[in-house]
Amino acid sequence: MTFIERLNRASRQRNSLLCVGLDPDPERFPAHLAGRADAIFEFCRSIVDATADLACCFKPQIAYFAARRAEDQLEGIINYIHERHPGLPVILDAKRGDIGSTAGLYAIEAFERYGADAVTVNPYLGRDSVEPFLAYRDRGVILLCRTSNPGGSDLQYLEVDRVDRVDGTSGRERLYERVARLVSGEWNQDGQCALVVGATYPDEIRRVRQLVGDMPLLVPGVGAQGGDIEATVRAGRNSAGMGLAINSSRAILYAGTQVDGGEKFAEAARQVALQTRDEINRYRVG
Amino acid sequence: MTFIERLNRASRQRNSLLCVGLDPDPERFPAHLAGRADAIFEFCRSIVDATADLACCFKPQIAYFAARRAEDQLEGIINYIHERHPGLPVILDAKRGDIGSTAGLYAIEAFERYGADAVTVNPYLGRDSVEPFLAYRDRGVILLCRTSNPGGSDLQYLEVDRVDRVDGTSGRERLYERVARLVSGEWNQDGQCALVVGATYPDEIRRVRQLVGDMPLLVPGVGAQGGDIEATVRAGRNSAGMGLAINSSRAILYAGTQVDGGEKFAEAARQVALQTRDEINRYRVG
Repeated sequence: MTFIERLNRASRQRNSLLCVGLDPDPERFPAHLAGRADAIFEFCRSIVDATADLACCFKPQIAYFAARRAEDQLEGIINYIHERHPGLPVILDAKRGDIGSTAGLYAIEAFERYGADAVTVNPYLGRDSVEPFLAYRDRGVILLCRTSNPGGSDLQYLEVDRVDRVDGTSGRERLYERVARLVSGEWNQDGQCALVVGATYPDEIRRVRQLVGDMPLLVPGVGAQGGDIEATVRAGRNSAGMGLAINSSRAILYAGTQVDGGEKFAEAARQVALQTRDEINRYRVG
Repeated sequence: MTFIERLNRASRQRNSLLCVGLDPDPERFPAHLAGRADAIFEFCRSIVDATADLACCFKPQIAYFAARRAEDQLEGIINYIHERHPGLPVILDAKRGDIGSTAGLYAIEAFERYGADAVTVNPYLGRDSVEPFLAYRDRGVILLCRTSNPGGSDLQYLEVDRVDRVDGTSGRERLYERVARLVSGEWNQDGQCALVVGATYPDEIRRVRQLVGDMPLLVPGVGAQGGDIEATVRAGRNSAGMGLAINSSRAILYAGTQVDGGEKFAEAARQVALQTRDEINRYRVG
């Protein structure tokens, strides 16, 4: 089964387009985890168990682990998700990008060492930098297209020439549109690709959806980053009311960590995840 | 002292523009290192000691360590370089790129955990994704501009509109030229930036040199990737016959690993490093 089939199946089974982002920040952990050597794993484990029936996937962000020398805890939490919550895909958010031979090693890192179902990749180095990831046919490759940060426009919003290969017409398009067309066309021959499009630009989510058919979009930027859920879902849903993995990290993870000593942080996280899932579902049709 | 001052000082002291890339591949190690738990560290240590007086910097590529769960050996070799060969900068080749808060964690990974003097960064996410790295004022940030792989052209060679802010003229430029102008202008306010430009495109090295003044260029792609040293140096040297860190990895590392059991691999690596340094120097002036 491909990554996208697994993602869609998990979405249907749980009636959810919510991706729970695992961005563990020890400075925001509840007091009872302070000082534990496995605090990062334990925090993530509690979040995973509290939200696994509400999410279509989990997305650990590798920088949070690497900055704290906690690769072993990242391996641990991905293994834990696969063992305890089978069928729930894990997207490793690593945004890797390098030339062929090195990209092959990053693919080993993501898919063999960590066992991720999919990995985020930067498109700046072009198609051959993505092929070593695509060689893992049952895994997904999620290319950065339009990112949610202000500086995303510095390159992604530049206009380039467009020539339509089918009808021969020409015009202009933004760089992120070119990336969407390249990825959904030439780079996606085996149906493994998806795109990252930030929730802070609903018009551009809509434009990407027009360009890529039913391809899944991973959408960060709701919750702490301020993206609007209704606008995101209406702009990004595909013809089946699917095709989205809307990520929320901090708003879920830290919903209750500073309340009454933080002992009920997992329940508080579950409440926010439930509300977010349901709010997303409200706009999937109609 | 800034990274670029340290790099220039090391270049002058050793009369070298050679960057030795540390891409340790255990499958190509000499037989006597096989099976050792610290084989990656030991291999790199031998290469470092054999070439430290011939190189202006070392460049470990993090994927080679991460794919093999060897982050501790990466920490070890960078510490070793700083302790045994002080004044020789270490560039961590990681090509990271993410939004602000996550970029801050990647900066911690590169500069605090590993203690790198500089790190390679992908420009696709724009200026605010680079600022957390620039906040380390004594460190360098080396942005991907024109990469040495075939697919590098997919995005980097696209034409975008150019407006000259000084004289108001307009025209077209390639995306990699825009990156060169952005990085050498707005992004480089504190003189911390450099650029990656592949040796496989000497005309584009020359163009980047025209755009960025004396800014250092990190040039991969000579040696195993086939880039021409004479063309690279003539195109890329700055007004002082400096401004280049020309990387060679595999051609140096594995020069002797399969010869007579590989016991003299470090001496063979030194010979190739010496030849490469001297060939580079032949074209720095004139």
